[in-house]
Amino acid sequence: MKPFESLGLRYDGKTLWALDQTRLPRDEVWVDGSDPVHMVPLIRRLAVRGAPLIGVAAAASLACHAERGATPRQYETARLALRAARPTAVNLAWALDRMQDAKDPVALAEAIFDEDIALCERMADYGAPLIGEGEAVLTHCNTGGLATAGAGTALGVIRRAWEQGKVREVFVDETRPLLQGARLTAWELKKLGIPCTLITDSMAAILLRDGRVQRVLVGADRVAANGDFANKVGTYGLAVLAAHHGAPFHPVAPYSTVDLACATGADIPIEQRDAEEVRRDWSPEVPVFNPAFDVTPAPLVTSLITDRGVLDRAALKAGGLSKLMR
Amino acid sequence: MKPFESLGLRYDGKTLWALDQTRLPRDEVWVDGSDPVHMVPLIRRLAVRGAPLIGVAAAASLACHAERGATPRQYETARLALRAARPTAVNLAWALDRMQDAKDPVALAEAIFDEDIALCERMADYGAPLIGEGEAVLTHCNTGGLATAGAGTALGVIRRAWEQGKVREVFVDETRPLLQGARLTAWELKKLGIPCTLITDSMAAILLRDGRVQRVLVGADRVAANGDFANKVGTYGLAVLAAHHGAPFHPVAPYSTVDLACATGADIPIEQRDAEEVRRDWSPEVPVFNPAFDVTPAPLVTSLITDRGVLDRAALKAGGLSKLMR
Repeated sequence: MKPFESLGLRYDGKTLWALDQTRLPRDEVWVDGSDPVHMVPLIRRLAVRGAPLIGVAAAASLACHAERGATPRQYETARLALRAARPTAVNLAWALDRMQDAKDPVALAEAIFDEDIALCERMADYGAPLIGEGEAVLTHCNTGGLATAGAGTALGVIRRAWEQGKVREVFVDETRPLLQGARLTAWELKKLGIPCTLITDSMAAILLRDGRVQRVLVGADRVAANGDFANKVGTYGLAVLAAHHGAPFHPVAPYSTVDLACATGADIPIEQRDAEEVRRDWSPEVPVFNPAFDVTPAPLVTSLITDRGVLDRAALKAGGLSKLMR
Repeated sequence: MKPFESLGLRYDGKTLWALDQTRLPRDEVWVDGSDPVHMVPLIRRLAVRGAPLIGVAAAASLACHAERGATPRQYETARLALRAARPTAVNLAWALDRMQDAKDPVALAEAIFDEDIALCERMADYGAPLIGEGEAVLTHCNTGGLATAGAGTALGVIRRAWEQGKVREVFVDETRPLLQGARLTAWELKKLGIPCTLITDSMAAILLRDGRVQRVLVGADRVAANGDFANKVGTYGLAVLAAHHGAPFHPVAPYSTVDLACATGADIPIEQRDAEEVRRDWSPEVPVFNPAFDVTPAPLVTSLITDRGVLDRAALKAGGLSKLMR
């Protein structure tokens, strides 16, 4: 592979390095993900995370494996292990299905990396025009340069609109339990110089009620054919709150996040994660419910922003997503 | 004063001890709150918290002050300092207004303590019959024995209904930023042997959607004349989510939390707290919005449970609260 670099992934011609996102923002530690046997746990423990990024990273790790002389059988075993690392984000399966029986895995992983950058640009092209002058927007989790190879999904749209002078301020849900908003999105926005204010997830309702936020943009881990989508837990409640207060609500996702094999959100597998993520050291032994994602039904979506265009609620209902993905 | 003891407050005949609730559940540390100069910061930093409890604790501290020989002028200065310790929960002002010019501050503080226990019992008397057989209920923050001198407000109702065999399970919002749900409510429920499951605040919407929770009960820090009420931040969003999913939503509060001088929720002062509570060590320097409370409008209330009876939405709208408080 030729060397490449994104905010959270780096290939120097020999080794694939991943920024350990669990240690941000305090420490910027790069870990070796060249071997799939290392990349699988990096993805599982969210050191490498973000629906598009885990697809890109897994493909690159598999390409390194091939480059370092993996047999076809070793390659296929590694591919299947990577593909099973996390269940909800379909980008992982999408990238690794492309890598199956690849004639030139290295060139293909490069192409997947480059394509993801381009997808981010196109989502921003389509999404930024929807944002009005002087808007404050709210986002959940992290959907920026750390979640993709490029500028991001929802955060890429927000960044473009900010560069155009339209976004005034970004409110960031801290995003419990793993605080991707507080740790990662706040860190990215600070680097970019975009004004941001951190809130607990439970404060979004106040901002919507008081008109301090005009619009909500979020990412997605899997979009079903009818426009229902899975995203970081908390997204569904935020969609209900946005609808209640009349604020436009947009998921932003590339075609690689769309899974037409899922007819509706009910078909999307939801990962349950360890109780310790929620209870930490302050609630020993208490039982915990900890789904990593929730599903937002399409009727709560104002419009879905993709790299191929924007679909409003009516278009989603009319089956527009299947047509757009053809 | 004669000795008394609650879950979070203890008077041994000489010294008023308060359980430092910021250190629960890991450490059970009792601190001396006999001197108002110590009680004020205990209330400010939430070592002593819960709308009813801070009223009871402040009155008891002031009584200790009198018992230890405070002059009338010292007594009044301490009373005003205690009264200003936190702005939103009206119980603090209510208790200290009663203590003004008290002929026998010690007897009055005792009466306030005993009355709060009785108020909890009466709220449970009125509230428990509203809960159906086999219900799972959701609660926010801490409203139990740590928040009152007695069994609690919302948690007192839940406890009574559980003792009657009606509540099957309690889901507990962790309640960011200070985790009163995860640290205090889970701790109380475990002591009581009531089955509970901890969630992040952002997961409540899923449980409501999936019918895994039948009812939401919360406390209140101040109830306005029209039934709007302030409570721990996150309550308003939860009320919107409960309404969206058709789940009954009940604030539970004693008459000492009702402030008829506030016509509506817009008149309730909302305390803004330090940014560090939200950003801690993971988001240095990021600006933060951190209101400790939010206001839920009465139209989102199914019924308000008080020690004097239950008022449904229609009764609240018809001015029933003013009549009930006469």
